[in-house]
Amino acid sequence: MRIAIDAMGGDHAPDEIVRGALLYRASGGEAELILVGDPARLAGTDGISVVHAAEVVAMGEHPSTALRRRGDTSIGVATQLVKDGHADAVVSAGNTGATMAAALLVLGRIRGIDRPALCGMLPTTKGGPACLLDAGATMDATANNLLQYARMASRFMEKVHGLERPTVGLLNVGEEPEKGGRMQLEVHALLANATDIRFYGNVEGRDILRGTTDIVVTDGFTGNVVAKAMEGVLDVMTEGIRRDIFGGPLGTAAGLLAMPGIRTFRKHMDYEPYVSAPLLGVNGVSVVTHGRARARMMKLAIDVAERAVSSGLIGAIGSGAAAA
Amino acid sequence: MRIAIDAMGGDHAPDEIVRGALLYRASGGEAELILVGDPARLAGTDGISVVHAAEVVAMGEHPSTALRRRGDTSIGVATQLVKDGHADAVVSAGNTGATMAAALLVLGRIRGIDRPALCGMLPTTKGGPACLLDAGATMDATANNLLQYARMASRFMEKVHGLERPTVGLLNVGEEPEKGGRMQLEVHALLANATDIRFYGNVEGRDILRGTTDIVVTDGFTGNVVAKAMEGVLDVMTEGIRRDIFGGPLGTAAGLLAMPGIRTFRKHMDYEPYVSAPLLGVNGVSVVTHGRARARMMKLAIDVAERAVSSGLIGAIGSGAAAA
Repeated sequence: MRIAIDAMGGDHAPDEIVRGALLYRASGGEAELILVGDPARLAGTDGISVVHAAEVVAMGEHPSTALRRRGDTSIGVATQLVKDGHADAVVSAGNTGATMAAALLVLGRIRGIDRPALCGMLPTTKGGPACLLDAGATMDATANNLLQYARMASRFMEKVHGLERPTVGLLNVGEEPEKGGRMQLEVHALLANATDIRFYGNVEGRDILRGTTDIVVTDGFTGNVVAKAMEGVLDVMTEGIRRDIFGGPLGTAAGLLAMPGIRTFRKHMDYEPYVSAPLLGVNGVSVVTHGRARARMMKLAIDVAERAVSSGLIGAIGSGAAAA
Repeated sequence: MRIAIDAMGGDHAPDEIVRGALLYRASGGEAELILVGDPARLAGTDGISVVHAAEVVAMGEHPSTALRRRGDTSIGVATQLVKDGHADAVVSAGNTGATMAAALLVLGRIRGIDRPALCGMLPTTKGGPACLLDAGATMDATANNLLQYARMASRFMEKVHGLERPTVGLLNVGEEPEKGGRMQLEVHALLANATDIRFYGNVEGRDILRGTTDIVVTDGFTGNVVAKAMEGVLDVMTEGIRRDIFGGPLGTAAGLLAMPGIRTFRKHMDYEPYVSAPLLGVNGVSVVTHGRARARMMKLAIDVAERAVSSGLIGAIGSGAAAA
């Protein structure tokens, strides 16, 4: 197995990306890795091959404009390696829009899947990951798109995270089946009748982190604003804990005393093992990880790509779509 | 001024509701208060009149069914007092759906306003409140509904929270004007052309708590799931801080040391002064507060009702709607 890595994408590229690749290899990862980027900046990558790409799509850049203007971007070249059969998967911590655009443009969609979906992966208080999708790949989704998301995410959670018959919740304003607007009523009926997913029913915003269901389905507009709003609360509270509670001399002393507890807290909030996920619906494994990724998160993202390939995720989504 | 209070609504009714009313009076509140509920359970309310209502809509009950079946509910009777001119406002910590249903049924809508909106009020890191609306009053909102929400919330933040020309953001998946789906593009154009609001542009989920804008407008489906998702993160993190960081013997010691900091943190997160807001668009002041309300939150909710009445909020929304 060969995995292409966008070595230039992400807040800490290329150094932490390279370190992540080395960490993957050092911890026994068996896939061959291909770093794609500027060879001059990819030093010390013994045993890992490098493929040249002159350009980078910056984090804030408009993705499709960037890809159209510059043929030779690291994410474009890495994705092309998958298309051409030189790699089995691509992993990127770079501009998510560019990773999606490259995947759609170069790999195309899986037959029978109408629109792609992005997973927002979160740790739950019951332990293990939850998958909130679509986190923003597609605007103006239809009810049928959401049914396809539920199917794709079910295969993803089975294949990559080893869950047996993962549960699917529909994000809504209340638990009762009659809640929500026209769209939610329509999706609810479709999900309730689907035999290839395990539909739990409606879930609310506060259920996501509780892990009430393994998968939470919604449209890409709602999923995106919800994921960013949750991240916002997390950031504000983390800052507040640091500044208000553990700032100042008394707080610093308290922090030393509380260190074992702070470690437990961090462990419970640790999303790094889960955060990376393949873009669902594109015809090849294209794993998106967080722009904040450092070496450990990159290593774990490569693990996800490896499991997606070895478990035959794309084929499973494809045959599910064909059967539906 | 007279303010009717649903004495039976909320997780801690009637005791904490009564205590809140007494607190309002003790701290110099000048409005006459009318407690509505079961007189046998409303003891010790010297100087506050009591109006009898035999029934209560429970927190989990289906609002309109409950209101239809039982004429004599505390929220129904309290709202009727406003309609009949015996009170200038109603305040409830009870079933939000029932408060909204009673307001719509008994008070009706303001002329020129098509659909009501519920404010989700949050404290921001820059200080002061932010108003996220609609937090779930209306499903399947139109672009024009959202324009009306922006106008109503602007008048509310001016009149009740004393902001001069509050800024309005449109909740979206990115800052650029071309972001979002069909709905967002349509709303963006309407907001950009409105002269009676101060439109900032698009904001993202993480901007809400930052206070990037004073008002964040969205549809009731999105607003509801976002508000509950944010509350979910808050709850999970608060539990984690208590259990992981300050649980156990070492943690308890750390907690004693960190106490001043914990107080500062709590103060920064304190939403009680802001959380209560009138249901916008109904023809009378009907203030909704959190079901968790205890005495202090109730007292602050009565303050909000008082300011909404004395500032002429309903008239301002009405003349704005007539001019539009």
